[in-house]
Amino acid sequence: KVDGARLWDSLMRMARIGPGVAGGNNRQTLTDADAEGRALFRDWCLEAGMRMGLDRMGNMFMRHEGAEPDLDPVYIGSHLDTQPTGGKYDGVLGVLSGLEVVRSIRDMGITTRRPIVVVNWTNEEGTRFAPAMLASGVFAGVHSEDYANSREDADGRRFGDELDRIGWRGDEGVGGRPIHAMFEYHIEQGPILEAEGRQIGVVTHGQGLWWLQVTLTGKDAHTGSTPMAMRVNAGLGMARIIEAVHRIAMDHQPDAVGAVGQANVWPNSRNVIPGKAVFTIDFRSPDRDKLTSMRSRIEAEAADIAHDLGLGIAIEPVGHFDPVTFDPTLVGMVREAAGRLGYSHMDIVSGAGHDACWINRVAPTVMIMCPCVDGLSHNEAEEISPDWAQAGADVLLHAVLEAAEI
Amino acid sequence: KVDGARLWDSLMRMARIGPGVAGGNNRQTLTDADAEGRALFRDWCLEAGMRMGLDRMGNMFMRHEGAEPDLDPVYIGSHLDTQPTGGKYDGVLGVLSGLEVVRSIRDMGITTRRPIVVVNWTNEEGTRFAPAMLASGVFAGVHSEDYANSREDADGRRFGDELDRIGWRGDEGVGGRPIHAMFEYHIEQGPILEAEGRQIGVVTHGQGLWWLQVTLTGKDAHTGSTPMAMRVNAGLGMARIIEAVHRIAMDHQPDAVGAVGQANVWPNSRNVIPGKAVFTIDFRSPDRDKLTSMRSRIEAEAADIAHDLGLGIAIEPVGHFDPVTFDPTLVGMVREAAGRLGYSHMDIVSGAGHDACWINRVAPTVMIMCPCVDGLSHNEAEEISPDWAQAGADVLLHAVLEAAEI
Ligand SMILES: NC(=O)NCCC(=O)O
Ligand SMILES: NC(=O)NCCC(=O)O
Repeated sequence: KVDGARLWDSLMRMARIGPGVAGGNNRQTLTDADAEGRALFRDWCLEAGMRMGLDRMGNMFMRHEGAEPDLDPVYIGSHLDTQPTGGKYDGVLGVLSGLEVVRSIRDMGITTRRPIVVVNWTNEEGTRFAPAMLASGVFAGVHSEDYANSREDADGRRFGDELDRIGWRGDEGVGGRPIHAMFEYHIEQGPILEAEGRQIGVVTHGQGLWWLQVTLTGKDAHTGSTPMAMRVNAGLGMARIIEAVHRIAMDHQPDAVGAVGQANVWPNSRNVIPGKAVFTIDFRSPDRDKLTSMRSRIEAEAADIAHDLGLGIAIEPVGHFDPVTFDPTLVGMVREAAGRLGYSHMDIVSGAGHDACWINRVAPTVMIMCPCVDGLSHNEAEEISPDWAQAGADVLLHAVLEAAEI
Repeated sequence: KVDGARLWDSLMRMARIGPGVAGGNNRQTLTDADAEGRALFRDWCLEAGMRMGLDRMGNMFMRHEGAEPDLDPVYIGSHLDTQPTGGKYDGVLGVLSGLEVVRSIRDMGITTRRPIVVVNWTNEEGTRFAPAMLASGVFAGVHSEDYANSREDADGRRFGDELDRIGWRGDEGVGGRPIHAMFEYHIEQGPILEAEGRQIGVVTHGQGLWWLQVTLTGKDAHTGSTPMAMRVNAGLGMARIIEAVHRIAMDHQPDAVGAVGQANVWPNSRNVIPGKAVFTIDFRSPDRDKLTSMRSRIEAEAADIAHDLGLGIAIEPVGHFDPVTFDPTLVGMVREAAGRLGYSHMDIVSGAGHDACWINRVAPTVMIMCPCVDGLSHNEAEEISPDWAQAGADVLLHAVLEAAEI
């Protein structure tokens, strides 16, 4: 078993960097806080005898040498960036558990044949720069480096410039590293494991996703002196599309979700009818047909809504991945490790996107999940127990030792 | 007649201060640009031989002396502040036409018995600091100075602090000035005069208004891994209330309007179900009963919507005025002046709130309107023709000369 107290201690130490306003974290990607978190993680890894690789996307590869350095390494990866009002575990648990696995192996004097590489993937959250899982996506060949570098945040700052600014761009080319297997350990971010009373989720699949950014163009006008019939109200159009997104997701139950998380109107003044609205639709399903159907339906309905109100409309896809099937051999390894350790477990589908979903395209990949209180995530109140954290890290340790061949 | 070219020239000169992004202005109240606009107006007035009074709300009273200085003066007032994406005429036309009236009187060598005071009322727009018409409201005894000073903008800066910062707080107590009559000349900000082909709107009434700020409290949660049934989506609640506002206004046709101009969700992240939404409802009608009815209906419907979605809700009134009836004698004076000058005119109700609506409570007041292209206002593309500007200023000159007694 890993040293659960040490893992918890590291989690709490990392959570001091980029504190939120309500007990969680705001350590958004490529901010000064992100740079500080990266440095702390690097220093811990160097203390544990690991070596650092850093690629042009800022992905950090911390390598623990194996008895046979030429064998393809086993990877353990997740992300250290957080939501603007994020929790202390989303992503961080997976990265620091990777470190804890290496620390434990060293403590136990175990040597694996294969090297072990613990990864911090850049910009998993996708809040500051859409899409999510950006740098693992470049690694997996889904996006080009140019595409990633040119992504802009709400203030018009570019991903590439911000990566340079915080000093975490490396020289290494992005992608092409040989990977024997990759493990990602993550909190569930949903309510199922807790509700079912299981300690471990063995993740067999991941939901697919569409992110659609909608821009509605109306006419700024005075809320008092513009008769109802003369209005071209982009805010009203946004409201109707938010409702349509909800209804379409409900029509695709079960196994489908939909919501609008980001919503802005211009000029955002109490006495001005909004002349512009920009917002993002998030549709997900483990079922590819449902995903496609939800996208087509909202495109048709949004066009009708815009037409009825006289609004201009543009819909731009800003994020997409297909439903994912993780590697059956690795899934089996995780399931067996959980059983061997006596942890209660169940197969589960990941509701969220994860770096593992992209890496799965270029290497055998699997995820392990632990419950989180009330299924709450992307919320500063996100919480897990030290026991839950330990259980997943133990399963990770056992599965990694098997994959890395002792 | 006034010197229309000089008036136009002054309008264009003022529009250079606080330029917008699309040909209009962003000279929001108590910004550096506001201070610069005030200084230019003051300098012009001093050149025209006027004296300045400045009260503790930053209201500027530029006095042109009369033959009998002890008589109650005739006031001409409006505002120099603009919307964040505002036009060049909303408010500014009324203030600079007041100045032009004084300039013309001097040029013509006319002396009035009563003094004439041209006023720039602070924070008419209400965008940066709600409510609108804040300082004329304090002048009219509707709000206390403390209330005004404590109003906060979106960044938490207080009205009083910002007034001190830009250096435009005077010593004079607020209110209590004897006013024989007050005239406000303003663009219509609506489409009626242009549609009816009239040069002058004789404003008999003003619409009443309710501004209601709604705060919905849900639960930030992950858009991917939170099942539909577990969501407490404040953004969805906002969408439903925006639609309800629209429907309620439509149910009160004619003579009623309703919209949501300001709308924000938190944390405003693509993959977070909004845990909080704050937005402002703007309902208006010249009919007091309709205004009351719209307010009660939205309060009831919003409570139901929040209840259905499990949301917390708080509704705070952040602006209100009753429908206004302007002074019949002054209304008659304006109507006759327009007729005498041969300008086509019609009686009209003001759709927007104006400083005149508050001053009407403490002194006989009336408004004069000119058309604006497409009825567009609170938009950088707001436009009027020099002829339209001149016509209203001529009517203002004649009515003021009659009220100020030559
Ligand atoms: N795990 C996680 O929250 N990733 C961000 C991408 C997503 O929204 O699913
Ligand atoms: N005239 C004007 O736009 N005033 C601002 C207050 C309002 O919204 O009516």
